[in-house]
Amino acid sequence: MIPHPPNGEHIDDQMVKIEVNLDDIPGEWLGYVMDLLFEAGANDVFYTPIYMKKNRPGILLQLLCSLENLNKMKEILFRETTTLGVRYYPLTVHRLERKFLKVATEWGAITVKQGMLNGQIVQTAPEFEECKQIARTHSIPLKKVYEQIWLAIGQEENLE
Amino acid sequence: MIPHPPNGEHIDDQMVKIEVNLDDIPGEWLGYVMDLLFEAGANDVFYTPIYMKKNRPGILLQLLCSLENLNKMKEILFRETTTLGVRYYPLTVHRLERKFLKVATEWGAITVKQGMLNGQIVQTAPEFEECKQIARTHSIPLKKVYEQIWLAIGQEENLE
Amino acid sequence: MIPHPPNGEHIDDQMVKIEVNLDDIPGEWLGYVMDLLFEAGANDVFYTPIYMKKNRPGILLQLLCSLENLNKMKEILFRETTTLGVRYYPLTVHRLERKFLKVATEWGAITVKQGMLNGQIVQTAPEFEECKQIARTHSIPLKKVYEQIWLAIGQEENLE
Amino acid sequence: MIPHPPNGEHIDDQMVKIEVNLDDIPGEWLGYVMDLLFEAGANDVFYTPIYMKKNRPGILLQLLCSLENLNKMKEILFRETTTLGVRYYPLTVHRLERKFLKVATEWGAITVKQGMLNGQIVQTAPEFEECKQIARTHSIPLKKVYEQIWLAIGQEENLE
Amino acid sequence: MIPHPPNGEHIDDQMVKIEVNLDDIPGEWLGYVMDLLFEAGANDVFYTPIYMKKNRPGILLQLLCSLENLNKMKEILFRETTTLGVRYYPLTVHRLERKFLKVATEWGAITVKQGMLNGQIVQTAPEFEECKQIARTHSIPLKKVYEQIWLAIGQEENLE
Amino acid sequence: MIPHPPNGEHIDDQMVKIEVNLDDIPGEWLGYVMDLLFEAGANDVFYTPIYMKKNRPGILLQLLCSLENLNKMKEILFRETTTLGVRYYPLTVHRLERKFLKVATEWGAITVKQGMLNGQIVQTAPEFEECKQIARTHSIPLKKVYEQIWLAIGQEENLE
Repeated sequence: MIPHPPNGEHIDDQMVKIEVNLDDIPGEWLGYVMDLLFEAGANDVFYTPIYMKKNRPGILLQLLCSLENLNKMKEILFRETTTLGVRYYPLTVHRLERKFLKVATEWGAITVKQGMLNGQIVQTAPEFEECKQIARTHSIPLKKVYEQIWLAIGQEENLE
Repeated sequence: MIPHPPNGEHIDDQMVKIEVNLDDIPGEWLGYVMDLLFEAGANDVFYTPIYMKKNRPGILLQLLCSLENLNKMKEILFRETTTLGVRYYPLTVHRLERKFLKVATEWGAITVKQGMLNGQIVQTAPEFEECKQIARTHSIPLKKVYEQIWLAIGQEENLE
Repeated sequence: MIPHPPNGEHIDDQMVKIEVNLDDIPGEWLGYVMDLLFEAGANDVFYTPIYMKKNRPGILLQLLCSLENLNKMKEILFRETTTLGVRYYPLTVHRLERKFLKVATEWGAITVKQGMLNGQIVQTAPEFEECKQIARTHSIPLKKVYEQIWLAIGQEENLE
Repeated sequence: MIPHPPNGEHIDDQMVKIEVNLDDIPGEWLGYVMDLLFEAGANDVFYTPIYMKKNRPGILLQLLCSLENLNKMKEILFRETTTLGVRYYPLTVHRLERKFLKVATEWGAITVKQGMLNGQIVQTAPEFEECKQIARTHSIPLKKVYEQIWLAIGQEENLE
Repeated sequence: MIPHPPNGEHIDDQMVKIEVNLDDIPGEWLGYVMDLLFEAGANDVFYTPIYMKKNRPGILLQLLCSLENLNKMKEILFRETTTLGVRYYPLTVHRLERKFLKVATEWGAITVKQGMLNGQIVQTAPEFEECKQIARTHSIPLKKVYEQIWLAIGQEENLE
Repeated sequence: MIPHPPNGEHIDDQMVKIEVNLDDIPGEWLGYVMDLLFEAGANDVFYTPIYMKKNRPGILLQLLCSLENLNKMKEILFRETTTLGVRYYPLTVHRLERKFLKVATEWGAITVKQGMLNGQIVQTAPEFEECKQIARTHSIPLKKVYEQIWLAIGQEENLE
């Protein structure tokens, strides 16, 4: 693992993916399990539909976490799902440098997240949850919020 | 419904599709439910993965049956799944005329099914289950069985 | 539509399904759109992955609502998604009679929902959200909560 | 069907959805079938993965067309896929009024499509294929093209 | 690999996952291929729908097996599917200790499988195939069978 | 890596799989991204529908490439998608020996690709794109083209 400043671009080779196949648990439980895993520190959790033996529609749970969280995640999976086994393998993650800016809009300042590759901006995106909150508070379609924010981002010189 | 001879091409407007969303039943139960529905006379049953509220991976069960079987199917769905409601709507089915031929192969005669549109052959296919049985019995890859059968079909003049 | 008492078994032929294909909207917006539609009175909203032209992974939004809510739902779809058209068709829903009972557990009384077909109990299920809350409050695996509740349900004579 | 000017908002009740379940045709053929159906006038064609009997991963083909194209579409499906039957049912489509504007950008004028509900703009989107072409021609990330175009749209007064 | 008694909890690092992308084989063949792979000793086989190039709906076959079975599995995949290449990577599996108990029910004794993490019971489940058989034999909804069995499990002291 | 002649059977352990989860990019962009990645030398690119947090239908992009192309692929993913991180892990690919033959048909010679395992033919398939071109040029159903070609392949002695 390359030492790096907080939010700096880096390559992390201390990550692991855990996988579990599930065909004996109801879908409503799995929404709850996802919440528990995120709360316990999972970097990501997601489900894929799979076709299992005996005509069973199943779910493949995939979870990304740091190696140091592996045991904690395994324990939640064993306690909260119905599985008798979990599998995992190491992987490497390349993360961009992240910067957070504020952009003025008619609804106040909102956060814009940028991703940088070798010091060059390759990603620019307003924070979704803030945009959603503006849409809710002002009863505006989310599309209209984004249109205004993209205009504001484009007009701000200091963003480029 | 247009009267028609057995296996004749026809348009059937006495069919119905039933749908149920399921997020509180394990996948292994659904393999069993599918079997029960086919045994009771469903024309087709199939599952689609769906994304339901509260992050729940769910299953959409779809079932095709004749209107006269509607009540029987509803009862099985209510008794064997966890749903409190089923929905349905009528649909029309256009079915081709079907003919069944025998084609000689090194493993004996096998059935070939043909579909005819306005009296013209548009589908020709060996019966899958018979091919599978040959592959099993003779320990041959299924591909090899199909290759031989396609050759036999092509060489039979009376098929065209 | 057959007149019926609240929660009584009935067949409702004033329902409609709306469908929209979406390939030009991010997934994170769709989580929000689902919330808006439920809040506005949709009976159900769910997503299915679809393969669209030009190699585009898309989403099929399906929505169930009463005919009287059709226009409200269409307006939300037009304002909050990116679609230029929505399609819909009528369908019939058969809903079971619903009863709500209380069952005593070590964590207090919890609600059990029953579904009845022709006056006969065919569904019995504890309310998921209450079970989840117990699991959270007492830091117990959800499985353990369900095991206790199934035992309590089985032991209550008045449930059968 | 309500008479309407070209591109005007309207409700079309002369549409039909055709469905076919397929478990005996390779995926590569289905990419080709989709092309043929669009070329013959289908309004939309899309695939959904389904779980069919005997552990078979299948595909549900869905096709939207006008009633007057129904027979043409059925014939293509019978000739080009392996099915022995197709099913269909009528549906209604509500389409927005569509307007096409030109917006000036550093790469020339590009088309912006607008959708109007009761005369009010609810959709605004640059034509994807034109944006893609600019990205290709100038070797710019597509994101950058969209950012510039959203800025140009926002700054054009006559768009609002 | 940690040496372990039969059915004891252990971590197995001699496992491998094989993957194959398939877009030129019919779905009905894949149901058969799954059977062959299980019969030859695969620990698990499952399918995921994928979107491949040229608008092709494809299938991702995933297979888990021990390293010592790798060559046998590869040979079946090459002989029975249409692929020209398979890929694979090692992974680790953490399996719980498994115990099998008998619980008395009105239909006779049925098997209950338990999973143990560090000697503590975290999984308890009746054997699905036995429950299904009771439901079939006695023409009872599977739900009713499970309800009775959960009650019996809860009442047996020696299970806790 | 075992040295091998062009198209010879070999095991390649210099391959890598890259994965990206996407919930903030429209599906139509992803069709374009797939094209860019193939043009830049990806061995394969495919999408899987996934269920992500907050009820978001997302897409898992998977990409196979040689280790020497890893950086080029990562750069395209960062520039052309919206992700702030990509993950990857090495894998091994076993590829069959490939041979290309010509088979005479009524529409001219077409290419047949064969795959060989330990020198034995296990795969035989006409080139899909050539078959498709014949179907287009001669306005014949693709099925009919394949039937003729399978017959021609079967009759050619030198293919076996």
